[in-house]
Amino acid sequence: MKALVYKGPGEKAVEDRPVPDVKDPGDAIVKISKTTICGTDLHILKGDVPTCSPGRILGHEGTGVVEKVGAGVAAFRTGDHVLISCISACGRCEYCRRGMYSHCSTGGWILGNQIDGTQAEYVRIPHADTSLYRIPEEVDEEALVMLSDILPTGFECGVLNGKVVPGSTIAIVGAGPIGLAALLTAQFYSPAEIIMIDLDDNRLEAAKRFGATKTINGAGSKAVEAVMKLTGGRGVDTAVEAVGVPASFLVCEDIIAPGGTIANVGVHGTKVDLHLERLWSQNITITTRLVDTVTTPMLLKTVAAHKIDPTKLITHRFKLDRILDAYDTFSRASETQALKVIIEA
Amino acid sequence: MKALVYKGPGEKAVEDRPVPDVKDPGDAIVKISKTTICGTDLHILKGDVPTCSPGRILGHEGTGVVEKVGAGVAAFRTGDHVLISCISACGRCEYCRRGMYSHCSTGGWILGNQIDGTQAEYVRIPHADTSLYRIPEEVDEEALVMLSDILPTGFECGVLNGKVVPGSTIAIVGAGPIGLAALLTAQFYSPAEIIMIDLDDNRLEAAKRFGATKTINGAGSKAVEAVMKLTGGRGVDTAVEAVGVPASFLVCEDIIAPGGTIANVGVHGTKVDLHLERLWSQNITITTRLVDTVTTPMLLKTVAAHKIDPTKLITHRFKLDRILDAYDTFSRASETQALKVIIEA
Repeated sequence: MKALVYKGPGEKAVEDRPVPDVKDPGDAIVKISKTTICGTDLHILKGDVPTCSPGRILGHEGTGVVEKVGAGVAAFRTGDHVLISCISACGRCEYCRRGMYSHCSTGGWILGNQIDGTQAEYVRIPHADTSLYRIPEEVDEEALVMLSDILPTGFECGVLNGKVVPGSTIAIVGAGPIGLAALLTAQFYSPAEIIMIDLDDNRLEAAKRFGATKTINGAGSKAVEAVMKLTGGRGVDTAVEAVGVPASFLVCEDIIAPGGTIANVGVHGTKVDLHLERLWSQNITITTRLVDTVTTPMLLKTVAAHKIDPTKLITHRFKLDRILDAYDTFSRASETQALKVIIEA
Repeated sequence: MKALVYKGPGEKAVEDRPVPDVKDPGDAIVKISKTTICGTDLHILKGDVPTCSPGRILGHEGTGVVEKVGAGVAAFRTGDHVLISCISACGRCEYCRRGMYSHCSTGGWILGNQIDGTQAEYVRIPHADTSLYRIPEEVDEEALVMLSDILPTGFECGVLNGKVVPGSTIAIVGAGPIGLAALLTAQFYSPAEIIMIDLDDNRLEAAKRFGATKTINGAGSKAVEAVMKLTGGRGVDTAVEAVGVPASFLVCEDIIAPGGTIANVGVHGTKVDLHLERLWSQNITITTRLVDTVTTPMLLKTVAAHKIDPTKLITHRFKLDRILDAYDTFSRASETQALKVIIEA
């Protein structure tokens, strides 16, 4: 089968690989229908993710059809149409039983990282009973690819952790796919204001179309001043950090109102300065989270009921044999205006 | 009247001052029965609290008897026996109506800071209706002095923010009066383990008597290694920072388990390093809070019902005319083994 393989920092290739087979009784082999590329895949290609070794097939998002199941799989059988979660979870360990699937002792984010992923014709999914979701007939398959990772990530790590409530004022720092996923799902809870902050006018334009009430093109003190002006000097109730660099986290520290929550979504590579000399008395909360995909069933219902339309995030489509072009388009997003790209196997 | 006056960094004096009078309709004048000294008073004396100007009468804790009330006071009258909250709250502004009294737009922590405080024979209490509590007959008055600040601070900022639940494992970094107040009130929620960390064996001995299940005399990596060993490498569900320096906050970052909460209680003078490059994926929560004293009525009931005995924290007693000796004893706590000192007016 064809597969996109990480060859070490800065290198990738489309290679011929054997179709995977069941290794453990809980495995399912899924024939991929659609997959996509995540910002995290670009991090891997930069060499930023030490758990991912050269030779790995990338990809942790996608939909497909069950080809084969191990003897221990009870919930799925050959021919089932499924959504693949970016998080593999045994469902039985201490963390799984607390709903913290991201910290499953034999799973978590391993797909396209510690085991071969979805940017291929077939993928082996461990713990299939608790890592796949059945796809309702009526739902657009491309919409569902957005439910493997970015929708639950924006929702769980940004909106739920950020405690977005009706009437509140929220700021989202970073209007990339994850920031936009937070923007879409924040609207479930009817905040009064959603201020979107980025340096790319195209992405801010998209944010406006997707429901942002205000946009700010700026960073650092310029962004902070603009937010404070928009909020009458008060700051925001929820600040979602959707970039993953110290500067954007500092913007969140500077715009958070007393009693507010900073929900970190970004993947950080270095420490940040936490200004406790100012924040110790401000009754704030800071949260971090690797997505648990515990809300995937809930999000499936919102998509089926047309409460949100995640296909808005899709800007480009490619066939699997053109996946290198897809990577090129996705990694030059500021020129190509790419948000999410769909890859059809 | 006699009063303890802050004279600028490093200087204080007992002075004769006029008895305060009602200035605003919401004021009450309270004749002090008992007061105490807080670690924050020592911070002021070091010059660390810029909002407190020389000439200020210190103190934000105490009990007393209402001497006189303004025309707008409805809940109290002359002769009422009252507990003074360290937080003055109008009860009407946006923050007060959310229960965030610490951020009251005309109150907050102003007593013994921006207005004259309780280390005197009389004190003026603004917003008396919502800043005083009636004292039940049967409760030990010395116990109540602990309810002006340290009990609600340890409870709200440490235990409630730290989400202590039955069966959980908690660590409290710092066994001073606030850390010990967190230790006492954490036991309301039946955690499985309470690990107390300090460098003072006397305080750790007190912690053991007050219910700590384990104690660690150590700091930095030594403390971290000891906690990880005690928890089988897992870390703690709740880490309470009750010191207020970067090193102790870092211990909390290093011992927190996935899904855990770091509850900051300490008053910090500088920024700290937040290791998001490691913590971004750990599903942790960090909270800060200036005590709101919103749980004072609840704590009053626990004291009246003998669920806790805060008089355990009292090690020394002085008359008001010996308050300089009280300061001396309190500020040399490692030698004198002082926890809280009671000052009788």
